[in-house]
Amino acid sequence: MSKKIVLRDDEMPTSWYNVVPDIPNGLQPPLDPETNEPMGPEKLSVIFPMGLLEQEMSAERFIKIPDEVLEVYKIWRPSPLVRASNLEKALGTKAKIFFKNEGVSPVGSHKPNSAVAQAYYNKREGVKRLATETGAGQWGSALSMATNRFGLECKVYMVRVSYDQKPYRKSIMQAFGAGIVASPSSDTNTGRAILESHPDTPGSLGIAISEAIEDAATRDDTNYALGSVLNHVILHQSIIGLEAKKQMEIAGEYPDVIIGCCGGGSNFAGLMNPYLPDHLEGRKIRFVGVEPASCPTMTAGKLAYDFGDVAKTTPLIYMYTLGHDFIPPGIHAGGLRYHGMAPTVSALVGEKIIEPVRVHQMECFEAGILFAKTEGIIPAPETCHAIRGAVIEATKDLNDPKTILFNFSGHGLIDMGSYDKYFSGELHNYDYPEEQIAEVLYH
Amino acid sequence: MSKKIVLRDDEMPTSWYNVVPDIPNGLQPPLDPETNEPMGPEKLSVIFPMGLLEQEMSAERFIKIPDEVLEVYKIWRPSPLVRASNLEKALGTKAKIFFKNEGVSPVGSHKPNSAVAQAYYNKREGVKRLATETGAGQWGSALSMATNRFGLECKVYMVRVSYDQKPYRKSIMQAFGAGIVASPSSDTNTGRAILESHPDTPGSLGIAISEAIEDAATRDDTNYALGSVLNHVILHQSIIGLEAKKQMEIAGEYPDVIIGCCGGGSNFAGLMNPYLPDHLEGRKIRFVGVEPASCPTMTAGKLAYDFGDVAKTTPLIYMYTLGHDFIPPGIHAGGLRYHGMAPTVSALVGEKIIEPVRVHQMECFEAGILFAKTEGIIPAPETCHAIRGAVIEATKDLNDPKTILFNFSGHGLIDMGSYDKYFSGELHNYDYPEEQIAEVLYH
Repeated sequence: MSKKIVLRDDEMPTSWYNVVPDIPNGLQPPLDPETNEPMGPEKLSVIFPMGLLEQEMSAERFIKIPDEVLEVYKIWRPSPLVRASNLEKALGTKAKIFFKNEGVSPVGSHKPNSAVAQAYYNKREGVKRLATETGAGQWGSALSMATNRFGLECKVYMVRVSYDQKPYRKSIMQAFGAGIVASPSSDTNTGRAILESHPDTPGSLGIAISEAIEDAATRDDTNYALGSVLNHVILHQSIIGLEAKKQMEIAGEYPDVIIGCCGGGSNFAGLMNPYLPDHLEGRKIRFVGVEPASCPTMTAGKLAYDFGDVAKTTPLIYMYTLGHDFIPPGIHAGGLRYHGMAPTVSALVGEKIIEPVRVHQMECFEAGILFAKTEGIIPAPETCHAIRGAVIEATKDLNDPKTILFNFSGHGLIDMGSYDKYFSGELHNYDYPEEQIAEVLYH
Repeated sequence: MSKKIVLRDDEMPTSWYNVVPDIPNGLQPPLDPETNEPMGPEKLSVIFPMGLLEQEMSAERFIKIPDEVLEVYKIWRPSPLVRASNLEKALGTKAKIFFKNEGVSPVGSHKPNSAVAQAYYNKREGVKRLATETGAGQWGSALSMATNRFGLECKVYMVRVSYDQKPYRKSIMQAFGAGIVASPSSDTNTGRAILESHPDTPGSLGIAISEAIEDAATRDDTNYALGSVLNHVILHQSIIGLEAKKQMEIAGEYPDVIIGCCGGGSNFAGLMNPYLPDHLEGRKIRFVGVEPASCPTMTAGKLAYDFGDVAKTTPLIYMYTLGHDFIPPGIHAGGLRYHGMAPTVSALVGEKIIEPVRVHQMECFEAGILFAKTEGIIPAPETCHAIRGAVIEATKDLNDPKTILFNFSGHGLIDMGSYDKYFSGELHNYDYPEEQIAEVLYH
């Protein structure tokens, strides 16, 4: 049997799949916090290009991928689908475990799937510069690569704890010509205010988002780019699942359960969404979203309207949230430190279609090292959460010959500092303080 | 047109190509320094398994790849062949530039091609532990991955300058369970002697090799593994060129010139060797080996018998050499800091079939950054030398529609510290001191 299934360039899907029209009870619209009325594209067009806003609001199930985007995708896409046969053996399970390897991208994660599309649409509409936030640095490096490719400038607000922990990520962004500051920074009003009140803050995605939005809103030549959560990001990531579906068919398999780690939700949604129509038509398939116990948005948060950022500059978004001013502890899976969850993912959790699961970082590193030792590839700390989820599924009943498909969202070669800390015993688990239940929700 | 050509698992070549029988005037045998007579396998079997010694001495043109090795190769192989169309545009050349992307391996370089085979043959013959040296850390991480895969222990002597410059490489080896020390180390007689006379030495591959051989020769359970130079390593790397040949055929192209960077010679030889028979049959094809000006083995060295290591523990090898006790400056392409060159590559340089070219590190980083900005992938500092070679070829005559194929031997995501130093202006060029002509050659 093949260890992995690859597709040729010309077998890559040429349309993205938009999950929005297939969400059984639809999505709640974003609200304008000043009026509590649904927010139209006019206000958002200050920071987003129309090409992306159209996608954000689209009711079409399939949206054509521009040739210019396909051309850049082809640097690394289609990505391989791999059978983790040695992991199966090590676990002693009869389950078949497959993973979609998004770590083969030039920056080592799934993030360029959306970064390339966002850079393209901004370029097409004459934008000169993008501002963004980054947690672990994966989104920042992806957008730096993409903006450079389309000749745009890029400014990245990088969450301080990751800025300090992951110096190589900074260098990657610099190599692609981006400007980077630690967030909170002294470059924005939001950043300065937070630095004054909390000079030692590790930062958070919520703060970094506020800074990047402020940057974009106050400069004519600049738009904002978000690496997860929004519908158009989830749309772009659907390329993962569309490819995986083709590859699983070639392998002669159909997944019983699909697993991904969840920060903002985009890599998990990217893999699972193209399978949602089958589920709705009655095919038995489960979707498991794995989140960190330190930032358990889906399992401890509330499904409600909340801001996407600390400074309350975003529209109100209907999503699972721990409160927009919740600052998660500095766990090493920086990409999973977000208080909210994509509205599309949140809706499917609300409808019990997605099963959220909560895991601790130590068990995730352990699973990641088992994966490295059996499959030869070192996973990113975020990806370790998905692997832990797959291990849990594969070992519930070792005799159950189920088929598991998980998203290997990125490799860990640039995160070895986290592994160092794990090996030297410096890391420990964090639990979300249940008593601290999101008081600060908007409603 | 396709951006890249991929092959399925079942299209991967199942035999390696052995260049030795095709070298026009053959190879000079390794000599026993005690007797000056050709060295047979008996003495070498103290540190190498017979399976590899048979390959080292083989006169067969094709040698079957064991299924167990193919199975591990399939984690990342066949690797993609990519058209660097954006680099072509940026250069304004009519040349077509293709690269074979060996950076997709789990440790980011071509090195696992031989590491996996070496671990397999040692395991098959009951060896429990391997000792090795590593320069930039690419070979060490590859062997750590491979030994872990086959259940062997691994001890890595890492050249001090790289040990200090590349902490993430260490962590990768640790994640795969290997033990690592900076070389020269206090773990061997050779290391202790050098530390006493040169406490501040940056180390060199020659020293690290001596230490690893001493380790292997003084422990019954331990063999030695070398990441380049030897015939069996060159054999294993032929998988690169065998795949590339198939892929170039699918692309409907034939290379006019093949380019690679040269440290010990294995990645360049791996790509070019399968094309050698065509050349010998009269097909017009050039082979360009690119080496650093700071360690110009092929362009300033002598073709002569010399030791492979500082402590004179290896057999005498007939090769281009700068002298076995030459310690190159600490340039950032650590993998190219070796005083010798593979005997097979040396023979082809001697016969004017390979054209050696000498370049400086600053122009290489510049070429590497141009590549990253156009093709989206950050190359390892070693690989920057091959890219620089390709740029020189593509821009000699911008109107010459030649087809260039180079080996993208590894990505640079774990070498960002070197880029940091380049960007901050801390790096400069080194030239080999011509007056220091290898006095220390054996003959």
